[in-house]
Amino acid sequence: MTTKVFSARAIEQLPERYRANFINSLSGFKSANLVGTRSINGVNNLALISSVFHVGANPPLVGMIMRPHTVVRDTLSNIKETGVYTINHVHSAIVEKAHQCSARYAANVDEFKAVGLHADISSTINAPFVAESRIKIGLELAQINVIELNQTELVIGRIVEVSVGASFLLDDGYVDIEKADSVAVSCLDSYHRTERIDRYSYAKPEQALDSIWKKRTMENTHDPKS
Amino acid sequence: MTTKVFSARAIEQLPERYRANFINSLSGFKSANLVGTRSINGVNNLALISSVFHVGANPPLVGMIMRPHTVVRDTLSNIKETGVYTINHVHSAIVEKAHQCSARYAANVDEFKAVGLHADISSTINAPFVAESRIKIGLELAQINVIELNQTELVIGRIVEVSVGASFLLDDGYVDIEKADSVAVSCLDSYHRTERIDRYSYAKPEQALDSIWKKRTMENTHDPKS
Repeated sequence: MTTKVFSARAIEQLPERYRANFINSLSGFKSANLVGTRSINGVNNLALISSVFHVGANPPLVGMIMRPHTVVRDTLSNIKETGVYTINHVHSAIVEKAHQCSARYAANVDEFKAVGLHADISSTINAPFVAESRIKIGLELAQINVIELNQTELVIGRIVEVSVGASFLLDDGYVDIEKADSVAVSCLDSYHRTERIDRYSYAKPEQALDSIWKKRTMENTHDPKS
Repeated sequence: MTTKVFSARAIEQLPERYRANFINSLSGFKSANLVGTRSINGVNNLALISSVFHVGANPPLVGMIMRPHTVVRDTLSNIKETGVYTINHVHSAIVEKAHQCSARYAANVDEFKAVGLHADISSTINAPFVAESRIKIGLELAQINVIELNQTELVIGRIVEVSVGASFLLDDGYVDIEKADSVAVSCLDSYHRTERIDRYSYAKPEQALDSIWKKRTMENTHDPKS
């Protein structure tokens, strides 16, 4: 296999667009989520965010990286103003509508209506969920830190509500996001379905791994009745 | 579809192990990377990290969330002591060895040897690459921030070297990590291959999306000769 090697200097000299694609590809697969917010004027907003990541389970924290003054500016200002937002998984049937949410709509445009998705009202927080989504999370803003290195903002929220299709939830708390058809993202614009290789047991030194998934499948307990 | 709804209070009261699986599932698919470091005593270390994420392309920055005093403690202290580390994509053929790296080996154990992977020497930084990996990134530590909410540490590195199989690199800078067989992770222990749905054009209001991937495939230019 021929390998291409890029030095720091070579990376610096890449054309801007090429470098954006190149560097965005390197971290690996990302999550695909629609972030729902509502402005103080009551306009719903929906943004496609591929930078959502797990921060911790206790307390339940989720982070995302946002760049001010870009297409997510309305999302970011709504979060700062209302202190709440929703994260909604993208599955393959809504990928095109989700990607369309990354267009730079004016602040007074409701992206739900513009792309043809539907807003679900939350009884607990003042932010809209995506009705079509199969895994929906309501969050309260916990903190925002500016990353001085590039002036992006790290937004961390605390999970205060979760809606998940009962058939995706296993008895050990694992949510089968593949069964929910949640997609993965690579780079800025590529969407991928997944196919499970396996789930493995907690690794210990000098001990062979056990397959959790095949075992479950054999015992036919991976799909709890609901 | 029956939906299960969890309130903040219900989440708080979940058993610890269940909650860890549950919350870890919710953010969506994650990257699967092996992080290579070397101790000041010259012992190579390799850790499986599913929290690597893109921070920015210019300067080229990558972040990861690490919890001190856990199995990644050696990785974290090596990064702090040497200021450098490598990030290496996991592909399906090395998934089990990669997962085994998440076992709690003693600080004087070289995980490369323990799990049967091979270390490649870097000419530029004092940290080992994974020879088997198809996409390898060398980084210099840029900053570490403690996230006070849960005492995890956000480690941000600047990319100073990239090695990528030439056949995975497209002419617009996109790295075809699916062709490289890079895997995605869900929750703590599930690994997934991917199948591309499509790449889409840059979204604009009132304009239909274009398919980049099918177009490329038809023009047969998505697989540049190298």
